[in-house]
Amino acid sequence: MLTDFYQLTMTYGYWKKNIHNKEACFNVFFRERPFKSGYAVFCGLEYVIDFLKNLKFTDDDLKYLKKLKTGNNKKIFDDEFLKFLKSFKFKCDIDAVEEGRLVFPNEPIFRVKGPLYQCQLIESAIVNILNFQTLIATKACRMNVVSSGDPIFEFGLRRAQGIDGALAASRASYIGGCSSTSNVLAGKIFNIPVSGTHSHSWILSHDSEIEAFRSFSEVMPDNCILLVDTYDTLKGVEKAIEVGRELKKINKKLLGIRIDSGDLSYLSKKSRKLLDKNGFEDVKIIASNDIDEFILSSLKQQKSKVTVWGIGTRLVTAYDNPSLGLVYKLSAIKENKSWIKKIKLSEQKIKINNPGILQVHRYIHEGKYDGDMIVDELIKNPNSTMIHPHDSTKVKRFSKNIKHIKLLVRIFRNGKPVYKNPSILKIKKLLSSELDKIDNSIKRLHNPHLYKVGLEKKLYHEKNDMILNLRKL
Amino acid sequence: MLTDFYQLTMTYGYWKKNIHNKEACFNVFFRERPFKSGYAVFCGLEYVIDFLKNLKFTDDDLKYLKKLKTGNNKKIFDDEFLKFLKSFKFKCDIDAVEEGRLVFPNEPIFRVKGPLYQCQLIESAIVNILNFQTLIATKACRMNVVSSGDPIFEFGLRRAQGIDGALAASRASYIGGCSSTSNVLAGKIFNIPVSGTHSHSWILSHDSEIEAFRSFSEVMPDNCILLVDTYDTLKGVEKAIEVGRELKKINKKLLGIRIDSGDLSYLSKKSRKLLDKNGFEDVKIIASNDIDEFILSSLKQQKSKVTVWGIGTRLVTAYDNPSLGLVYKLSAIKENKSWIKKIKLSEQKIKINNPGILQVHRYIHEGKYDGDMIVDELIKNPNSTMIHPHDSTKVKRFSKNIKHIKLLVRIFRNGKPVYKNPSILKIKKLLSSELDKIDNSIKRLHNPHLYKVGLEKKLYHEKNDMILNLRKL
Repeated sequence: MLTDFYQLTMTYGYWKKNIHNKEACFNVFFRERPFKSGYAVFCGLEYVIDFLKNLKFTDDDLKYLKKLKTGNNKKIFDDEFLKFLKSFKFKCDIDAVEEGRLVFPNEPIFRVKGPLYQCQLIESAIVNILNFQTLIATKACRMNVVSSGDPIFEFGLRRAQGIDGALAASRASYIGGCSSTSNVLAGKIFNIPVSGTHSHSWILSHDSEIEAFRSFSEVMPDNCILLVDTYDTLKGVEKAIEVGRELKKINKKLLGIRIDSGDLSYLSKKSRKLLDKNGFEDVKIIASNDIDEFILSSLKQQKSKVTVWGIGTRLVTAYDNPSLGLVYKLSAIKENKSWIKKIKLSEQKIKINNPGILQVHRYIHEGKYDGDMIVDELIKNPNSTMIHPHDSTKVKRFSKNIKHIKLLVRIFRNGKPVYKNPSILKIKKLLSSELDKIDNSIKRLHNPHLYKVGLEKKLYHEKNDMILNLRKL
Repeated sequence: MLTDFYQLTMTYGYWKKNIHNKEACFNVFFRERPFKSGYAVFCGLEYVIDFLKNLKFTDDDLKYLKKLKTGNNKKIFDDEFLKFLKSFKFKCDIDAVEEGRLVFPNEPIFRVKGPLYQCQLIESAIVNILNFQTLIATKACRMNVVSSGDPIFEFGLRRAQGIDGALAASRASYIGGCSSTSNVLAGKIFNIPVSGTHSHSWILSHDSEIEAFRSFSEVMPDNCILLVDTYDTLKGVEKAIEVGRELKKINKKLLGIRIDSGDLSYLSKKSRKLLDKNGFEDVKIIASNDIDEFILSSLKQQKSKVTVWGIGTRLVTAYDNPSLGLVYKLSAIKENKSWIKKIKLSEQKIKINNPGILQVHRYIHEGKYDGDMIVDELIKNPNSTMIHPHDSTKVKRFSKNIKHIKLLVRIFRNGKPVYKNPSILKIKKLLSSELDKIDNSIKRLHNPHLYKVGLEKKLYHEKNDMILNLRKL
């Protein structure tokens, strides 16, 4: 039922016309680089698999659908159709990129093949899940690339877009490279380390700042990070040092101080000096306050002394680009046992989809990724040359001895899951090894070098011919 | 468990120090106008009530917390504390604005009074829910104010931030003035009308556009809206007219056409002419394609012939301002049976909270809202003058015969719900009557007139004194 209503009216139509079981192929892809990033991080597959495993219409759902009426008070769906929905059994084949892999515009990252109506019914949820998690994993990855080893704590729960907006964002952020989440439920569900110590209200609940610090160090001697900016940051640091000394006496350690406001460059440097002067060289400085990858990069350039970053709003809402714009397009449909390729025209060339049963070949040259070629599995003997999807003057030929991997792997066959979900740590590791395989210029924040993605030559020309033919030119 | 980890470490600390049952008061408010809007629409209360009704720690939760370790491998929580959590019973008093009411920066919109640790444990979820739903209801309201009567269909499911990001957005959008959602699950759960007909893939699944239209009109003769832009919009309209004629012959009606790409001003006018010329004056023109309130307003000014608007991404993600920045601040704490007022200092005056047990008096003059005065219930005989929170030169006095309502109403008492949730339709109606009570200049998209919100005079001066005192000036 997590679907757009038109999927149901179309399903009803297909069923009425008895074409619902025609086999179709749909591909998921995005057209534009989120955050103008040189890469994106595929994420959300495990959620989608869970969703598809549990797909069904309950009696309650059918009761709801039964009472839906048109504007002129006629039933929208007839009982026979509701019976058909009740007998729904998922039958599709799914192929997808593995979570943690780098992906790029225009290439299929998820493919559904199966009865036309089933492909439609699952569209909305699949796009919702992959759209959001891929977006956030990408954002997190960009931040972690810039922090270059400094841990980033995600604490976006309160500012996320809804409850699952928070949970899914915690998962995607961790995959994207963050070290922990503040969200306890996310920690529990996804097996992500949780972190956090105290807020300003802890300080305000005590008679003085020093008393609040001391009290916290007593109850959390092994996890003592003190928030120093409730009244005056640098005076707060001095008090934290005092408590740090007391901890030393009982063989415990002040782990860090946190600054949540003010000029993070200036305050972190001043704090570092104070701490070092007093023998607290290993106390970490944690900073937060509307940080994103650009501010983080600027603070790094200013040689701020922040060593751990706390990021919330701008990460979990992907503040400057809050939707990836993922689409799900029909690319082929079977008629009389043979596939008919499909494209939707548009005034904007970038909006025209690629036809066929698509797959991506990622070429690897001396351990580095050399380019992604979108191929149509229906085209025999594919060419070793690819052409830029929207610019026929950009051509790349792969020499024959270059190996490639296929990006889309088997996830479901005939409605049954055939893929073993890797652990979340394994996904993190995959991403980290992926990042090693692309040039640093692709990871730049501004004007990144663009990784090459093209259409296999025959596919390119076939698509071009289809467009001209449809336009009757 | 839907909470930030530091709420748990603080709760542990309060409990260890045996101050967890001290009574505290926290207020929820936002500081900056979302979308630079002249108003916001309070939304999310019903979700929060549901959350609070079901608050508890399961055995599974406690098992998870039990195994959490510090960096040096010590248990974070001791067993005694976990037992304490197991016995958790919600005890707070909650007062809140009713859903659908207009709210403004700085004023408390939700207030929690109760045991300190309970106030903290529920903070993150409350802020998450209210932050998002208030944001989206506000965005939807702005769009509906501009559409001035034209229905807006929300269809953001696929681009929303997660599953609940979609569901909660559908609810908030409907409250904000939208007519329907595409999300079937949201329709079912929240009792919102659902709408939708078919997508481009319906067209592509047939041999030709006209065949696809005809086929749809046959299966949905009472709900026939045709998407005309798969190949060429105006040719599509001509084919829709053909099918419209066929429907007329069997005493049915073509309800509308939908345009999802291209220049919506130009195409809607051309389409209108074609439709009218052929006797289809009452066929609606539905438009979609990354519309927000500014594009909608521009299309209205261009006298586009769109009569129904389909809005997705930019509504459900609040694209240009994806977080409201709601905060939850301690404002008073009870010591020896008397309330001690609390503020947190900050370099930025706007970030300093208001102290006390806050309430809002909304003054009504000749049926219109005349200003909101933030009062502290601890201050006896409040003044009838209010002062702008951040500008002492802006003063407003209410004459004695002006009535006011109290914005915060009773929701929970001693942990028990005492508020009856209104139906979603009643919430919509409340918003609509609220909009009638403010001047049109406040509803402007650009540079709206600012509705007056101030601190009751005694509260203002008390706060000022507290700041100076804390700064030792």
